[in-house]
Amino acid sequence: MKFTKMHGAGNDYVYVNLFEETLPTEAPALARAVSDRHKGIGGDGLVLIEPFENADARMRMFNLDGSEAEMCGNAIRCVAKYLYDHGIAKKDNLQIQTGTGLLHLELFPENGIVERVRVNMGEPILESAKIPTLLAGDPPVNATLIVGGMELQVTCVSMGNPHCVTFVDELTDDLVLKIGPQIEKHEVFPRKINAEFIQVISPEEFNMRVWERGSGETMACGTGASAVAVAGVLTGKMSRKVTGHLLGGNLELEWSEETNEVFMTGPATEVFSGEWNG
Amino acid sequence: MKFTKMHGAGNDYVYVNLFEETLPTEAPALARAVSDRHKGIGGDGLVLIEPFENADARMRMFNLDGSEAEMCGNAIRCVAKYLYDHGIAKKDNLQIQTGTGLLHLELFPENGIVERVRVNMGEPILESAKIPTLLAGDPPVNATLIVGGMELQVTCVSMGNPHCVTFVDELTDDLVLKIGPQIEKHEVFPRKINAEFIQVISPEEFNMRVWERGSGETMACGTGASAVAVAGVLTGKMSRKVTGHLLGGNLELEWSEETNEVFMTGPATEVFSGEWNG
Repeated sequence: MKFTKMHGAGNDYVYVNLFEETLPTEAPALARAVSDRHKGIGGDGLVLIEPFENADARMRMFNLDGSEAEMCGNAIRCVAKYLYDHGIAKKDNLQIQTGTGLLHLELFPENGIVERVRVNMGEPILESAKIPTLLAGDPPVNATLIVGGMELQVTCVSMGNPHCVTFVDELTDDLVLKIGPQIEKHEVFPRKINAEFIQVISPEEFNMRVWERGSGETMACGTGASAVAVAGVLTGKMSRKVTGHLLGGNLELEWSEETNEVFMTGPATEVFSGEWNG
Repeated sequence: MKFTKMHGAGNDYVYVNLFEETLPTEAPALARAVSDRHKGIGGDGLVLIEPFENADARMRMFNLDGSEAEMCGNAIRCVAKYLYDHGIAKKDNLQIQTGTGLLHLELFPENGIVERVRVNMGEPILESAKIPTLLAGDPPVNATLIVGGMELQVTCVSMGNPHCVTFVDELTDDLVLKIGPQIEKHEVFPRKINAEFIQVISPEEFNMRVWERGSGETMACGTGASAVAVAGVLTGKMSRKVTGHLLGGNLELEWSEETNEVFMTGPATEVFSGEWNG
């Protein structure tokens, strides 16, 4: 099976082009095998790029534990780059079907190669029942959550997948690696949740680390950064146009007052392509 | 640059065949770039397979920090498999030049593919000055070493590269991840050292975790497992023929009473091949 390894701000997946390839085994088992960083190809998961009616392509993604994810803002930029660079859809504007619906992307090619992509991440979902969370508020803003003996103030937003944003003074391993997994599985989040920890630098800038549902800590999370931009406005901590510094790189975000949509701009990088023997 | 990703008991490297390929950049910088598990190919380091006079090939290896390593018992099995499977040297017995000299390997092909390899790891080096260590004894056996406030009983052996073996009741993250790096850089080891932590199951069987000099914890270390087999005999804890259970798989070891050489048998697996764009 031919594959391509790509990353968006360090959020790295194994991409398989189903316009040409066929999977050797079922996607969940394949995702677990290829994601293994010692005995597999290594990555945060598996992304399938496949034909879809009324769209340039459809992306399906599977976390390293085999569970299917709705969408990933860093992965979809790589899908757009792949479609353009490999000549499947040589257009500056693409429409890609995801688990959260049809998304619109703007590409910025230079010399026939795409390095940066702007994604319309859609409107945030703020009704607690739809996020979903049992916490009160539409959405819960600075809601109290007791985790591991700590009292956190959390703000919850869905960008198609659920996010729990906590603003903190300092980003520590303990917060991300010990509190993160407890937030993920907390009883007030019936479908589990992604946990973002944010240190605000200025109204236009923040540092972020993220614990992703089903994957653990990752270098970056695009829907997470989008949720943070929304949470920053809702809590009055940040403005509508911000830059996030993630472990794997920078993402620019804008929550449009006019359309209520979140736009994310960030890098997409192809690292290598290969042939999987497994 | 074409490459092949292989692992021996989970100890995974990026292999480049210099019989055909040319490096795009200097090896230390390339090792750091390709080893990155998010933005590179991902691996414990880089192994170069190149022509050498009076041998079937020479292997050179670079850790993920760019430092050059003398030898790795798991990597050399993969080099042997590569030479055989790819038709560079289609023989059951191979001689490969390494940083610790010329090593002899016995291959066990099945249907034209090698899955297991026996390596003559050579004679252990037991003189403390040559290991090298400032600890007393040739070699130091159950020598006292104070590390991080703990008093350890360590046995030091070189298999061409230096090893510090500690027998413990239980293998814990704290031992490997906190004490390991302190042993690596302890002042009594002038060229630094690899740190093995061993739980003896029976005289024929042990569990092992290893902190590798320049790489951190790895899934397996072949010279380390060989040093453990020697240390097991020297301390009277194990017999000359033992099986080690490492995070990445099993290795069989034998310290020959007749020739004084250590023989290691273990798996070698090709995972994928690819084209590096970096």
